[in-house]
Amino acid sequence: MEGIRVVDITTALSGPFCTWLLGSLGADVIKVEPPQGDSARAAPPFRSDISLYFASVNRNKRSIILDLKTEEGKEALHRLMKSADVLVENMRPGVRDRLGFSDQDLNVINPRLIVAHISGFGQSGPLSHEPAYDIVVQAMSGVMSINGPMGGPPTRVGFSAGDIVASLFTALGIMQRLYERDALRCSGLDHVDVSMLACQWACLENAFARYLNAGIVPEPIGSRHPSLTPFETYPSQDVDFVIALSGSWDWPKFCQTIGRSDLVADVRFEDDENRLENRDALDDILGAHFKARPASYWLTVLKSASIPCALIENIESIATSPLADAYNAFSKVETSDGEIMRFVRNPIARLGSTETPAPQLGEHTAEILKELGL
Amino acid sequence: MEGIRVVDITTALSGPFCTWLLGSLGADVIKVEPPQGDSARAAPPFRSDISLYFASVNRNKRSIILDLKTEEGKEALHRLMKSADVLVENMRPGVRDRLGFSDQDLNVINPRLIVAHISGFGQSGPLSHEPAYDIVVQAMSGVMSINGPMGGPPTRVGFSAGDIVASLFTALGIMQRLYERDALRCSGLDHVDVSMLACQWACLENAFARYLNAGIVPEPIGSRHPSLTPFETYPSQDVDFVIALSGSWDWPKFCQTIGRSDLVADVRFEDDENRLENRDALDDILGAHFKARPASYWLTVLKSASIPCALIENIESIATSPLADAYNAFSKVETSDGEIMRFVRNPIARLGSTETPAPQLGEHTAEILKELGL
Repeated sequence: MEGIRVVDITTALSGPFCTWLLGSLGADVIKVEPPQGDSARAAPPFRSDISLYFASVNRNKRSIILDLKTEEGKEALHRLMKSADVLVENMRPGVRDRLGFSDQDLNVINPRLIVAHISGFGQSGPLSHEPAYDIVVQAMSGVMSINGPMGGPPTRVGFSAGDIVASLFTALGIMQRLYERDALRCSGLDHVDVSMLACQWACLENAFARYLNAGIVPEPIGSRHPSLTPFETYPSQDVDFVIALSGSWDWPKFCQTIGRSDLVADVRFEDDENRLENRDALDDILGAHFKARPASYWLTVLKSASIPCALIENIESIATSPLADAYNAFSKVETSDGEIMRFVRNPIARLGSTETPAPQLGEHTAEILKELGL
Repeated sequence: MEGIRVVDITTALSGPFCTWLLGSLGADVIKVEPPQGDSARAAPPFRSDISLYFASVNRNKRSIILDLKTEEGKEALHRLMKSADVLVENMRPGVRDRLGFSDQDLNVINPRLIVAHISGFGQSGPLSHEPAYDIVVQAMSGVMSINGPMGGPPTRVGFSAGDIVASLFTALGIMQRLYERDALRCSGLDHVDVSMLACQWACLENAFARYLNAGIVPEPIGSRHPSLTPFETYPSQDVDFVIALSGSWDWPKFCQTIGRSDLVADVRFEDDENRLENRDALDDILGAHFKARPASYWLTVLKSASIPCALIENIESIATSPLADAYNAFSKVETSDGEIMRFVRNPIARLGSTETPAPQLGEHTAEILKELGL
């Protein structure tokens, strides 16, 4: 993405994660901040007064302070947009009209700009002016309604799925529009209007397919899979572990592998549909069987038969595992204070690409204004 | 994406969801299936013998049956790859070498091909040959360890986050490599090596940032947010609802809005860090307060002050709500049997773009072979 300039007027998570993705793929990302800075700079926890929430998703960017309530600020923003390929903004619809970059303004400023909008509910429609944060979108989209313990309350997904999935769709939409502009020679201002709500719905494609075409209303089912079993968590003599069978042809092999060939002939479990119908009975049998030995035994046996299975790791066990290094999980950045901080890498960035730390507020204001001739 | 041809040799979910994204953005996606078909065709539930799991993520594709164990099958695949821009495959590393399209083969067949690999653990590294499905990756990545009820067991995210997030990263990587090839005129075979594991780690950027730089080990915290409060589920007189404050400057407004101005001066709650430290006490106070009136009352009051809040919807309440239509949530397709089926739309596809139903197994074999001159 060398040579692609992205003007980033976003705060919090959905916008910054999107532009972090683009920056770590080589784009020149300029983060425009108001004099008080992105509100995420104040999100705890901190290390050496740097918000870790902010520092993680604002790597590989330069920061310029612009007060968009002043004429000078607006003028600088216009120059910046004129020099850019992409604008990403996650203001509430309508706000940017008052700040001098409505659709009409943008068409005059830079008629080749790809403009990505991220909002809770899109640029138009009955909810477009309502504020939204991750949990609001997870609640309204139905994501919470299928996440959590079986029979228990709807539960927020433990990472900010409402934001992060919207970030990914936005980055994809930007790349697609850029491709159409520069490789397929389409012309004119183009928009990507991303609603966090619709992005969560896309994650629920299976749940909606089941409801819309078979009348099934999915609910939280703990660690079970809605249409496959065994594909869930099981107890053992010591710790829980997971098993994932891909379909019926693995079933006989699975039964033999765990020493329960008797189950192969059991009509209650003979195919996916029967196993789903009788999954409580099956889980009772398997649970009792697995409790006789430790998880390490079962993992060894199952892996020798190429049956997908795993221990349930946590953040610490992963970060301290040799796997993290083997898979280049993390990148190091050195802040201007000489602090070394580590964060997750972009999994599709080329190996060997380096990252720069999240900028201090306005760190590059003078440099960028100079580049713009101001 | 008109004119971009994608050869799709994937099964199950991570690959098909990725190529559905590309197809719904206009690419010509050709799904190569073995004589017995994608195993997902057998995944319940069914409508008119069509797997809904399969039908949802294989829209906008043509299906060709190729037996890659025969010379004719290999020859047809080579011709197809020669005609294509992108190849997406989610076989286990090494399998394709035996099927005649190793990296060396591909470089001869089509030196301009963008090759995307989706696997559990990447094309190289200590786990590259291990099989993986969604729950295995959710378990091994740490995602399960931060999802679920507070103090409760690690819980699988209720949608297939392990697959879907990998699909999104792969589609993004493909678009970026295509852009570099066709707009920036980079040349030569290019790869996107996507591991589902690393994609889950990217979703955990905040959790890892906290551990790597502040030693915090995140755990399941139900519907709470790790670094913001109030940003969670609350009870009311009738149903639960969610509130999402964005930061400290909303706090005084929030207290006044709900009729608890007395809390503004309470030092336990004066900023984000104090509220996080005293969140149990705060939740007790707010929970008791909200229980005095129904959720509808609180939503009206909070929305009038522009404080993000929502009811927790489920799949049925959304599908039957006017919002689904207002936001073009679903598209209709008509199968060759005349069945009308509905599925979630790609949220970044242009409005008005239509979708074709998932193909029958081998539906387009003759048509595609003819196009290839075979």
